Amino acid sequence: MDDRDMDHGHSAAVAWEAGKPLVIEEVEVAPPQKNEVRLKILFTSLCHTDVYFWEAKGQTPLFPRIFGHEAGGIVESVGEGVTDLQPGDHVLPVFTGECKECPHCHSEESNMCDLLRINTDRGVMINDGQSRFSIKGKPIYHFVGTSTFSEYTVTHVGCVAKINPAAPLDKVCVLSCGISTGFGATVNVAKPKKGQSVAIFGLGAVGLAAAEGARVSGASRIIGVDLNPSRFNEAKKFGVTEFVNPKDYDKPVQQVIADMTNGGVDRSVECTGSVQAMISAFECVHDGWGVAVLVGVPNKDDAFKTHPMNLLNERTLKGTFFGNYKPRSDLPSVVEKYMNKELEVEKFITHTVPFSEINKAFDLMLAGESIRCIIRMDG
Amino acid sequence: MDDRDMDHGHSAAVAWEAGKPLVIEEVEVAPPQKNEVRLKILFTSLCHTDVYFWEAKGQTPLFPRIFGHEAGGIVESVGEGVTDLQPGDHVLPVFTGECKECPHCHSEESNMCDLLRINTDRGVMINDGQSRFSIKGKPIYHFVGTSTFSEYTVTHVGCVAKINPAAPLDKVCVLSCGISTGFGATVNVAKPKKGQSVAIFGLGAVGLAAAEGARVSGASRIIGVDLNPSRFNEAKKFGVTEFVNPKDYDKPVQQVIADMTNGGVDRSVECTGSVQAMISAFECVHDGWGVAVLVGVPNKDDAFKTHPMNLLNERTLKGTFFGNYKPRSDLPSVVEKYMNKELEVEKFITHTVPFSEINKAFDLMLAGESIRCIIRMDG
Ligand SMILES: NC(=O)c1ccc[n+]([C@@H]2O[C@H](COP(=O)([O-])OP(=O)(O)OC[C@H]3O[C@@H](n4cnc5c(N)ncnc54)[C@H](O)[C@@H]3O)[C@@H](O)[C@H]2O)c1
Ligand SMILES: NC(=O)c1ccc[n+]([C@@H]2O[C@H](COP(=O)([O-])OP(=O)(O)OC[C@H]3O[C@@H](n4cnc5c(N)ncnc54)[C@H](O)[C@@H]3O)[C@@H](O)[C@H]2O)c1
Ligand SMILES: [Zn+2]
Ligand SMILES: [Zn+2]
Ligand SMILES: [Zn+2]
Ligand SMILES: [Zn+2]
Repeated sequence: MDDRDMDHGHSAAVAWEAGKPLVIEEVEVAPPQKNEVRLKILFTSLCHTDVYFWEAKGQTPLFPRIFGHEAGGIVESVGEGVTDLQPGDHVLPVFTGECKECPHCHSEESNMCDLLRINTDRGVMINDGQSRFSIKGKPIYHFVGTSTFSEYTVTHVGCVAKINPAAPLDKVCVLSCGISTGFGATVNVAKPKKGQSVAIFGLGAVGLAAAEGARVSGASRIIGVDLNPSRFNEAKKFGVTEFVNPKDYDKPVQQVIADMTNGGVDRSVECTGSVQAMISAFECVHDGWGVAVLVGVPNKDDAFKTHPMNLLNERTLKGTFFGNYKPRSDLPSVVEKYMNKELEVEKFITHTVPFSEINKAFDLMLAGESIRCIIRMDG
Repeated sequence: MDDRDMDHGHSAAVAWEAGKPLVIEEVEVAPPQKNEVRLKILFTSLCHTDVYFWEAKGQTPLFPRIFGHEAGGIVESVGEGVTDLQPGDHVLPVFTGECKECPHCHSEESNMCDLLRINTDRGVMINDGQSRFSIKGKPIYHFVGTSTFSEYTVTHVGCVAKINPAAPLDKVCVLSCGISTGFGATVNVAKPKKGQSVAIFGLGAVGLAAAEGARVSGASRIIGVDLNPSRFNEAKKFGVTEFVNPKDYDKPVQQVIADMTNGGVDRSVECTGSVQAMISAFECVHDGWGVAVLVGVPNKDDAFKTHPMNLLNERTLKGTFFGNYKPRSDLPSVVEKYMNKELEVEKFITHTVPFSEINKAFDLMLAGESIRCIIRMDG
């Protein structure tokens, strides 16, 4: 494609109001500025975070906005100063970035880039504080620097992972958010040893990916915990060996798990966003060596509360963001894990819809029927 | 010494009642039973834990009792089945043990032996549920399996570390509790890297030992936090470079420290027992990579409370017990660190008293004047 192709509008699914169906509109997508790239999105998928901010319950509403942050695409053009990427590169855009220059990017442990860490309130590009999207001159806001519900989008170069061009984008697109988050939480942070027991709280896409991480790590027992028993059948495909529904017991779920495991699991990963589940996930790990990892995003007023003795008894509590992956440095190797068949992604993809039916993806998620629904931009 | 020497009584400092001065009495010390050893104590020192249980505020009172758990001595005789130790061995008795057979002893990470972990309520030996101490047939209770305020004591073989006989027992006796606890909390658990910043909450013996651990690890900044400004002068000898008294500020101390360190310290070690200090110690570590370690023993009704976002931002929170050292496997090498001059212990020893004046050691600690006071059993 040459630049003239970008002169007329391209389709994007615009959220005009909180909770109202998206509308496919012709949108102008301005050229990439300094340290920015313009991407042609081929496949995108729907993640809960899109739904939360589209519903805008409790968050600052910012409309009209183009949502979407799990996607795969191809670089269309690059702005000034971009040397790492060129047109034609296959890429995954990511909602958090890696500037490669701040203390976090220099740290071996952190992936919370000072410049590009997730910001859900900002609807503009950091270079000039403006949006690259417009309809007849009226700006449309960005979402977490990705806005992938659009044929073309502009992102900061630090929020784009260049991947193996042989990787099928209709599959690996799901690695740009939830699956990497859950998988990385287990393999990078909880790090179960072969033969250890792992409890996974919440069996949505993130929790199932955490279970997949436990399976790949050789866990002997993977105990899935969810309030929704319909999640249990699906979860078997992800290596979950036992199920606990807290509603089935009078005693706290941490006690149920301790009783099942002679004192507690070796590792737990919380993928619910419920603070009660966070506390249970911590208290259900074995004293002496247990490690609990929090992944779910809590509410503003939540308080994590436990008796300090639970900590002194040599338990470890950690939180993680995007599975501790640095997007540009680490995501390409996650794609390779898929290519080497170490990590399965097909089983996460339960549905596919054409772009014109993007609102169906929202319906499926709200009904709890999908794990991941792929949206084909060519449809 | 031959067995006849043990037939008549030997001196022990008996606590007859909570909070009342100890009384030196002639006490019979029965021979060691299966898996037990009888020790001749040469030096013992006073730790806060003795004082807490002697005051018996909030704990189950168990009197009459022989306190004491930081000490150095020599094996006098061994019971049935004891093969690791023989009469004449130089040893440190420890308030927690290592059976070498339970899952904790087999774990690389834990030192919380299932059989021999600290038990402050039990005043008898586990072999027969009886005390080895008596006065005219009336039993006197043990304390944490050590009861070192006695010329002779009986301990489980799993609670005795055999050390280099060249090590001066009047110095290394302090390694059997508080100093190893603080030092190990830093070097085994917080593990600061060379050049990192470390905050130490509480500058008692344990906190000063944690600071010594930070100094030995090559920390660039060691920030001491205490409500008692008189601790600050002493602390300089232990490598503390900066001081913060929370009372001097209107904002929370975690904010003061974040402002001093461009977002937070790399590591913190809490050695106070105050749950408020535990929360501050956690919240003052840097996001992305900060690690906070809790050491202080909280009250029964305390709740550790923080916003879960502080965890999700990739902070780590851990607790530790006895510096994560396994008494029999690891303590001999801590003594070697002293012998190699890697770890200084003399500066912890501020006072020495003869056994006959043991109550002076209590007075000094209650007045906050001592770090460690050595009690010479021959005096
Ligand atoms: N840290 C990160 O980088 C990151 C990235 C993506 C998503 N997330 C968060 O991860 C969490 C999970 O995301 P998802 O897309 O899998 O969500 P999801 O809604 O599909 O799944 C959550 C599951 O948790 C279950 N659940 C809720 N409360 C529970 C409780 N108290 N006990 C047991 N189960 C409970 C629900 O029934 C549901 O099945 C969310 O909070 C999301 O915001 C975090
Ligand atoms: N985990 C273990 O294995 C283990 C072993 C030994 C001791 N301990 C515990 O470690 C803690 C310290 O022991 P120690 O012998 O050094 O005690 P200590 O009383 O000598 O020192 C504690 C210091 O903390 C300070 N302090 C109290 N509250 C504070 C606050 N809110 N903010 C800042 N400073 C505060 C005090 O002023 C004092 O200087 C105690 O709780 C003790 O029970 C734990
Ligand atoms: Zn950065
Ligand atoms: Zn997402
Ligand atoms: Zn053991
Ligand atoms: Zn002690």
